[in-house]
Amino acid sequence: MTQLWHHCHAITMADGRYSLITDAALVIVDGRIDWIGKADDLAAQAFDAIHDLGGRWLTPGLIDCHTHLVFGGDRSGEFEQRLEGVDYETIARQGGGIVSSVRATRETDFETLYASAEARARLLLAEGVTTLEIKSGYGLDLDSERRMLQVARELGKRLPVTVKTTCLAAHALPPEYAERSDDYIELVCETILPTLAGEGLIDAVDGFCEGIAFSPAQMRRVFETARRLGLPVKLHAEQLSRLGGCQLAAEFGALSADHVEYANDDDARAMAASGTTAVLLPGAFLTLRETRVPPIEAFREHGVAIALASDLNPGTSPVLSLRLMMNLACTLFRLTPEEALAGVTLNAARALGIDETHGSLEVGKVADAVAWDVTGPAELAYWMGGQLPVTRFKAGREVQS
Amino acid sequence: MTQLWHHCHAITMADGRYSLITDAALVIVDGRIDWIGKADDLAAQAFDAIHDLGGRWLTPGLIDCHTHLVFGGDRSGEFEQRLEGVDYETIARQGGGIVSSVRATRETDFETLYASAEARARLLLAEGVTTLEIKSGYGLDLDSERRMLQVARELGKRLPVTVKTTCLAAHALPPEYAERSDDYIELVCETILPTLAGEGLIDAVDGFCEGIAFSPAQMRRVFETARRLGLPVKLHAEQLSRLGGCQLAAEFGALSADHVEYANDDDARAMAASGTTAVLLPGAFLTLRETRVPPIEAFREHGVAIALASDLNPGTSPVLSLRLMMNLACTLFRLTPEEALAGVTLNAARALGIDETHGSLEVGKVADAVAWDVTGPAELAYWMGGQLPVTRFKAGREVQS
Ligand SMILES: [Zn+2]
Ligand SMILES: [Zn+2]
Repeated sequence: MTQLWHHCHAITMADGRYSLITDAALVIVDGRIDWIGKADDLAAQAFDAIHDLGGRWLTPGLIDCHTHLVFGGDRSGEFEQRLEGVDYETIARQGGGIVSSVRATRETDFETLYASAEARARLLLAEGVTTLEIKSGYGLDLDSERRMLQVARELGKRLPVTVKTTCLAAHALPPEYAERSDDYIELVCETILPTLAGEGLIDAVDGFCEGIAFSPAQMRRVFETARRLGLPVKLHAEQLSRLGGCQLAAEFGALSADHVEYANDDDARAMAASGTTAVLLPGAFLTLRETRVPPIEAFREHGVAIALASDLNPGTSPVLSLRLMMNLACTLFRLTPEEALAGVTLNAARALGIDETHGSLEVGKVADAVAWDVTGPAELAYWMGGQLPVTRFKAGREVQS
Repeated sequence: MTQLWHHCHAITMADGRYSLITDAALVIVDGRIDWIGKADDLAAQAFDAIHDLGGRWLTPGLIDCHTHLVFGGDRSGEFEQRLEGVDYETIARQGGGIVSSVRATRETDFETLYASAEARARLLLAEGVTTLEIKSGYGLDLDSERRMLQVARELGKRLPVTVKTTCLAAHALPPEYAERSDDYIELVCETILPTLAGEGLIDAVDGFCEGIAFSPAQMRRVFETARRLGLPVKLHAEQLSRLGGCQLAAEFGALSADHVEYANDDDARAMAASGTTAVLLPGAFLTLRETRVPPIEAFREHGVAIALASDLNPGTSPVLSLRLMMNLACTLFRLTPEEALAGVTLNAARALGIDETHGSLEVGKVADAVAWDVTGPAELAYWMGGQLPVTRFKAGREVQS
């Protein structure tokens, strides 16, 4: 099956830059990019199908490299209570906060969890997302973590999206382990990770390294377990304080360190050396009204790849638009629109360890792409909200809305 | 034509509160709400049509009461330049800033202006907007201001939306009047306003009262002209400094004072006395990285109605989602989700002087409504981005996407 895509301008994102090809054509063979270049340079040949893109701008399919989109329950009421002046303690006493998501997720069956997750995933996909990372972390016991990861895998089967699963059993301390966090880490390392890895449900291992979650020493145990299991790692690090998560991540050659508001120049240097991507999460930054901006200049200087993600989760980042994260990263963190687009394409692929096959429009890569009705690439970061009209392709096939 | 809408929960927004009716039914007669209440209380009767809303939550149609959505040109490149570190002066020397929108709007013909405005309007409508205010203000001469207002009127004819037009000729000083701002205000008052009012193109008169635009004394001339022409007024006031715009607006019984970051307690008191609505524009606040939050507490205390709007414009608020403004108003200004919803329904209707007929689901009002697939009203402000699935009604008719 050989296709021609033409009448487009390609924002290829090769090397993480726009790397524009105006008046471009692409030859797609069996879902991969076989040729890309100026339409004028294309040799005459026969095609099974021709797709006229009507002069639109074509980008790689967007990659959301950090989401918690599988969860039970609904925390919009808690959002409202906080704004009505109810304090955190009262909400916690009512069983609110992350504990409420854990309880609801444990109580929710597969089909119900799947249905709510699919609805959210469809909204991300409608805006051009073709690859999605999905974390567990609201189960916090073997069966519930398994169910979350099974839902994530099922999304990848039923929807036109590549799903990468991440086991985030080390997300929070479950209530039944109160005051026994080392015992919980032992459960994670001795039971949850090996079992679910054995079932093929885990593509990467993540944790939340923070005063309110787990210590660097505890995360080290988790990472050592991941290493034994042959799984790559990533880490929620330095969001609210600097505990050394970035250094730990770098030491283990982590795919990414995420949030990283409190990372410093040393951390950037270590991450650059280990090839660890910095994943910025402006939705959580805005929702939590954070003021400490991640060290963008240090990342640039040391050559740390910067990715952006929705962090879609019910508590601190109820975000249903990855493109909105591009705008917020420009406004809040002063990324350029080009950096913002790299953050949801090539650098997001790096954060998932799939940049050999995804994240840019280059020969040999999977033909995940989006055709946008815009005047140029800057518009993708410029508009706040709004469903920009798009044509979407997953592995060479047009996705119907 | 008598319709029944049932199997829904109505968020009526009567009195600007949720004023929920669970298990509600509505009787729509000739596009107006003839009855609303508990389905159980509805008397048996015949209907020409029955609409089963499948248990969804029904709100009034959303009202975007402050937009500049008609404009020529494209300023996404300028957005990008600023983020790449090009300074304002350089951009201004290149003809950037508002002047570039004025030049492009003047050079753009009716059909081209219309097409770009319609595309933007459709994105707002897709999210549930049924009434739209549209300002002129990038023409700054008689013909170009007229063309902008004609485009706005045409949108109201061709799309399922009520359009209220606002003449904002006093938006900025056109280049040909440099150093002669009083002469330009004379053109506005002696020619532009009377002519376009005579042509039926103006529903309200607005101005930009700020150090970088027009003084309170100049705006007073504009408002006196509006009063002579029998037109209501509104004002861009106290966005960047406190010049007295709110007091002036209150003195003229303005429908609204907009932005109002620098308004104070005295201003809130005056606005309450004159029934002037405070229109908050969180998209511009965020984009400009403002830090001065409007005096929400003073507005609440004195009983000033608070509305929210997109301020959709190419320079300082490239916003294509009114629902996103609800989220930002909660996060940035600490409005409650209920206040946020009032801000885009009943209070937005007040800001346009149409609250007798629009803005809530009450008997006698136009049947503009949106059915949302959510678990309750708080979700509307909770999610950032994402196109929530909706069914839309304009004057009783279902709007097809
Ligand atoms: Zn996270
Ligand atoms: Zn404005």
